[in-house]
Amino acid sequence: MTIGEKSLKKHYEWKGKIETKTKVNLQTKEDLMLAYTPGVATPCLEIEKDPNKSFLLTNRANQVLVVTDGTAVLGLGDIGPLAGMPVMEGKALLFKHFADVDAIPLCIASKDMEEIIRTIKLIAGNFAGINLEDISAPRCFKIEQRLKEELDIPVFHDDQHGTAVVTAAALINALKIVNKKIEDVKIVINGAGAAGIAIAEFLLFLGAKDLILVDRTGILSKDEQQSNNAKQDIAKKTNHRLIKGDLSVALKNADVFIGVSVGNIVTKEMIKLMKKDPIVFPLANPIPEITPTLAKEAGAKVVGSGSNLYENQINNALVFPGLFKGAMLANAKSITHHMMESAAHAIADYVKDDLRSDYIIPSVLDMGVHKAVIESVRKKALEDGNVR
Amino acid sequence: MTIGEKSLKKHYEWKGKIETKTKVNLQTKEDLMLAYTPGVATPCLEIEKDPNKSFLLTNRANQVLVVTDGTAVLGLGDIGPLAGMPVMEGKALLFKHFADVDAIPLCIASKDMEEIIRTIKLIAGNFAGINLEDISAPRCFKIEQRLKEELDIPVFHDDQHGTAVVTAAALINALKIVNKKIEDVKIVINGAGAAGIAIAEFLLFLGAKDLILVDRTGILSKDEQQSNNAKQDIAKKTNHRLIKGDLSVALKNADVFIGVSVGNIVTKEMIKLMKKDPIVFPLANPIPEITPTLAKEAGAKVVGSGSNLYENQINNALVFPGLFKGAMLANAKSITHHMMESAAHAIADYVKDDLRSDYIIPSVLDMGVHKAVIESVRKKALEDGNVR
Repeated sequence: MTIGEKSLKKHYEWKGKIETKTKVNLQTKEDLMLAYTPGVATPCLEIEKDPNKSFLLTNRANQVLVVTDGTAVLGLGDIGPLAGMPVMEGKALLFKHFADVDAIPLCIASKDMEEIIRTIKLIAGNFAGINLEDISAPRCFKIEQRLKEELDIPVFHDDQHGTAVVTAAALINALKIVNKKIEDVKIVINGAGAAGIAIAEFLLFLGAKDLILVDRTGILSKDEQQSNNAKQDIAKKTNHRLIKGDLSVALKNADVFIGVSVGNIVTKEMIKLMKKDPIVFPLANPIPEITPTLAKEAGAKVVGSGSNLYENQINNALVFPGLFKGAMLANAKSITHHMMESAAHAIADYVKDDLRSDYIIPSVLDMGVHKAVIESVRKKALEDGNVR
Repeated sequence: MTIGEKSLKKHYEWKGKIETKTKVNLQTKEDLMLAYTPGVATPCLEIEKDPNKSFLLTNRANQVLVVTDGTAVLGLGDIGPLAGMPVMEGKALLFKHFADVDAIPLCIASKDMEEIIRTIKLIAGNFAGINLEDISAPRCFKIEQRLKEELDIPVFHDDQHGTAVVTAAALINALKIVNKKIEDVKIVINGAGAAGIAIAEFLLFLGAKDLILVDRTGILSKDEQQSNNAKQDIAKKTNHRLIKGDLSVALKNADVFIGVSVGNIVTKEMIKLMKKDPIVFPLANPIPEITPTLAKEAGAKVVGSGSNLYENQINNALVFPGLFKGAMLANAKSITHHMMESAAHAIADYVKDDLRSDYIIPSVLDMGVHKAVIESVRKKALEDGNVR
């Protein structure tokens, strides 16, 4: 049985991966009168007087919306809102398991940007954070930007920023192995969708100077017309030498390759074009841009992929549970680059003295790393004063 | 400390009355691969092929949306969506406790009917039922009607139909006590809002012939202009003798009084106008139209109220958990009057040989009555063939 067949069988057994749980015992008439009518009128009126009390008198403070329109589910593309639900529930499961966050999975049956934005805004009052998920680019950029501007709770598109944070964490440690600095290395990102652009933005924030993005049409360059605003913007901040060409051209003398594109498009020959001790992160899932085995045969010094079949799995799930929990514990109004940076360092630092080329990043199953992320993000949010 | 003050204190302690719970263990890499990526792609694709599989491969089949716009919360009126949340969470708590239904409480920050309808439609695919709650009349009628027409899952406005079912259950048993038949009795309903109209409609369905509705302006009569369509419609089906006047006029020779209005507006003298062995249900909450004590002093034979401080509490919570669960177990596409009737009889019959004038309806805390409702509704839905 393949892993997919086995998963299908399990999903039929589970009939859902999360459920609700009562936090209040209902044994007596008084229990009912306190939790429900008539007593409940008093907390209702308290929130009417001060809407911020909704964070104290309901589950809101620990509640995140995990929401998609089903247009970019995993690598499957636009499979529709209902079909996206197993992923949203999976995400909610991880939120609860790793960080005790109550996540409500929700699929919106619309592809209209304004309607998606409006729907999320209308229900945002029930939550302390919004995790956007599996929304296709470039729509996801606009939706996220608008919601960030118009809501005063964290809005976070995990496919962009979760990927960026965990990739940065892996890169921080990989650079230690090869004894290079982020300011000095040439980084090539293949794939200029949601993840690729977010990784680029975040690595620039962390100090990277020499970045090149490549998409299906070749290297992005600011002197050429890009197919959307997001690409246009990132083209201005990258590829300062205005190099033209395909991925092979980009990889010449590169120190770092980050793939967020499609499987099997990088060859051993292409890796051999890179500088000494190359760092290779082929993150495409389930099939990486090049298998870690081939990458190492071609001379890669540190390899991390999206798959858990190999060493160094670079997995978003290391980030989003703790990042949201930390933000929520601090009553954060948004998730800033500083908070993301603290999460990346918390993950990287968790490896400590065990750091080796085949162990640059902790396992997502290690509960300790999530605790570390929670605490570092919580502290950073409070330091920044970015809180209610 | 009043019950309200105590409830407020408890709400600060609880910080929410429901939370999420994982249904899947995550201990190994394989657990993650089955519940999340890469395995989860297969159930996603299965739902893409057949959207009905969303009921089998996610938590949808056991999941109800409890949704309000905050315009008619308890007796508090339009206190806004955030302030309605403690009631929605309370409802979700009762759903889980009494019938193991996973209810997601949600407040929509809009009073625009079309926008509320649209929002609910866009997220309905995540649920097997929609429980509308605390939406003001007459908006609630239109919202419910449109959603019933446009969705293929049960849509149920509990303030209307939950109240109707539990009132009918109490009436069925009260009529046994006084040895009268529903076809023969004169019933006066005071209050022609959501609850009053729904009770009238349902009692007509159950065979009542002589019904009079009264609102603040007096007895509803089809030869007079009513303030909204819902009142106009029910006026056509009631008060066949076209009686005019106030509540006292209506109560002359009535067998049954049902109050869904405001506190303290019925006097002992008014009860004395009723026929022999009057049945009196002053359901206004928290203050009844007349206290059960006064009603009995005035000659009422059977009294039931909305309060648990007196005998015979006529409580919606006897209905909605089991009604939804039964519907969902049968994969029902809607909640029909037949299913509501089976719920009313299940509640009434549960009392069995213990029937007395001060025990016409079971306690909501008795888990057995919820089981009985679930089973009777499930069977009726399957008999009716009203299922997916």
